[in-house]
Amino acid sequence: MTAKLYVIGLGPGPECWLTREASDALAQISDVYGYGPYVARLAARAGLCVHASDNRVELDRAAAALERAASGRIVGVVSGGDPGVFAMAAAVMEAVEQGPPSWRALDIEVLPGVSAMQAAAARLGAPLGGDFCALSLSDNLKPWALIERRLIAASAGDFVLAIYNPASRARPRQIYDAFAVLRTHRAGSTPVAFARAIGRADERVTLTTLAEADPALADMSTLLIVGASTTRWIAREGRAPFLLTPRSYGAAP
Amino acid sequence: MTAKLYVIGLGPGPECWLTREASDALAQISDVYGYGPYVARLAARAGLCVHASDNRVELDRAAAALERAASGRIVGVVSGGDPGVFAMAAAVMEAVEQGPPSWRALDIEVLPGVSAMQAAAARLGAPLGGDFCALSLSDNLKPWALIERRLIAASAGDFVLAIYNPASRARPRQIYDAFAVLRTHRAGSTPVAFARAIGRADERVTLTTLAEADPALADMSTLLIVGASTTRWIAREGRAPFLLTPRSYGAAP
Repeated sequence: MTAKLYVIGLGPGPECWLTREASDALAQISDVYGYGPYVARLAARAGLCVHASDNRVELDRAAAALERAASGRIVGVVSGGDPGVFAMAAAVMEAVEQGPPSWRALDIEVLPGVSAMQAAAARLGAPLGGDFCALSLSDNLKPWALIERRLIAASAGDFVLAIYNPASRARPRQIYDAFAVLRTHRAGSTPVAFARAIGRADERVTLTTLAEADPALADMSTLLIVGASTTRWIAREGRAPFLLTPRSYGAAP
Repeated sequence: MTAKLYVIGLGPGPECWLTREASDALAQISDVYGYGPYVARLAARAGLCVHASDNRVELDRAAAALERAASGRIVGVVSGGDPGVFAMAAAVMEAVEQGPPSWRALDIEVLPGVSAMQAAAARLGAPLGGDFCALSLSDNLKPWALIERRLIAASAGDFVLAIYNPASRARPRQIYDAFAVLRTHRAGSTPVAFARAIGRADERVTLTTLAEADPALADMSTLLIVGASTTRWIAREGRAPFLLTPRSYGAAP
């Protein structure tokens, strides 16, 4: 019996951000489950059964993968980025919790990956150099009041914010509400970066401030970074400035 | 002129967590700068000049690497985990900010990696499945009052906490103070995990609750996870339980 379920982080896009562990697991699995665009990134291979599904059916996808693994297959569930950060690891665990007792006995292994905020931070310099919060703006699974409470709490703690899922076609307005909240709790001069599709062909970075940021720039492929009070730019001639949150919390140099 | 500085994330320990991009950069560099134990992980190679240094001299190390790159070398600064998360990217940017103008013209590239909280989360299940804060408990570079303020703010927002640098030989008491703060702001039944040296030979995971956690378990190699109000265990017969922070913020199932 070789039953096994891997939850595999593909990283934010290009294959160069895949770990060796993830590559090795992708070469071993007999079945792969994932959101269509993630599965489409994988090279087709003889003997690999591909189960692509829509977005927002994560729990069904996880249950299908667990059932397949329980039948004795070596199954992979793929996530963009890190499966542990706003991705498939939680959905798989929820499915285990709700499923038949036999699923709890399965050999399940989560393989970490580079998450979108890390790719964005690497491109920008070191915006996550101090303490930070990672927050999803989607209210599909939690009430907007909680999101607002968290935006305010993160601001009270002067944390840098890495905001996932800032906007989608179904949720175009929340990013406006989020900026309204942030503007009453952080200085207008706070650096803001819209990091869109980092590492992919349509990558686009927009550097601005909280006062001047245009929420319309955010979409499903955008990772938004909002600085702490210590976050600042480092100007560079002929190159994009770096964004830095220094390790120390003192006066600016 | 091939002058280049890579800031390279080595991941939390085992080579299987390295990205291909990081491996490729390690094969290209002429000089490597890093904290001794990180540099010691690399395979020796003809033509590679190794510059190992002590911990807590990050700014000097970064400046030395920048100076070397400015002389026309292809230089790597290595970090454990992700250089953007409590690691060398911020030190390199601070050195650029404080250094000669010529350093701002350098080709500097940060290569992201898997950070300790992600390796810990992968081992535990999905504890970072909801919104979370990453916080360093070291007060070498920021006042303890700020750390306390952030522990309270993170609790007010009911964020999961990933705590880096919880204790060291020079700072054995702060983790006790941190637990005292957390115990007045979160339920005693809150799940807590001490994830020590994940992926390394001396890996050790301790699962407990906020009320029962022994702060003495934390050391420099420990990543501490403190749950949100929704974080819970999934019991498994014959296996360690999973730790889950579900994506949804509602009643327990």
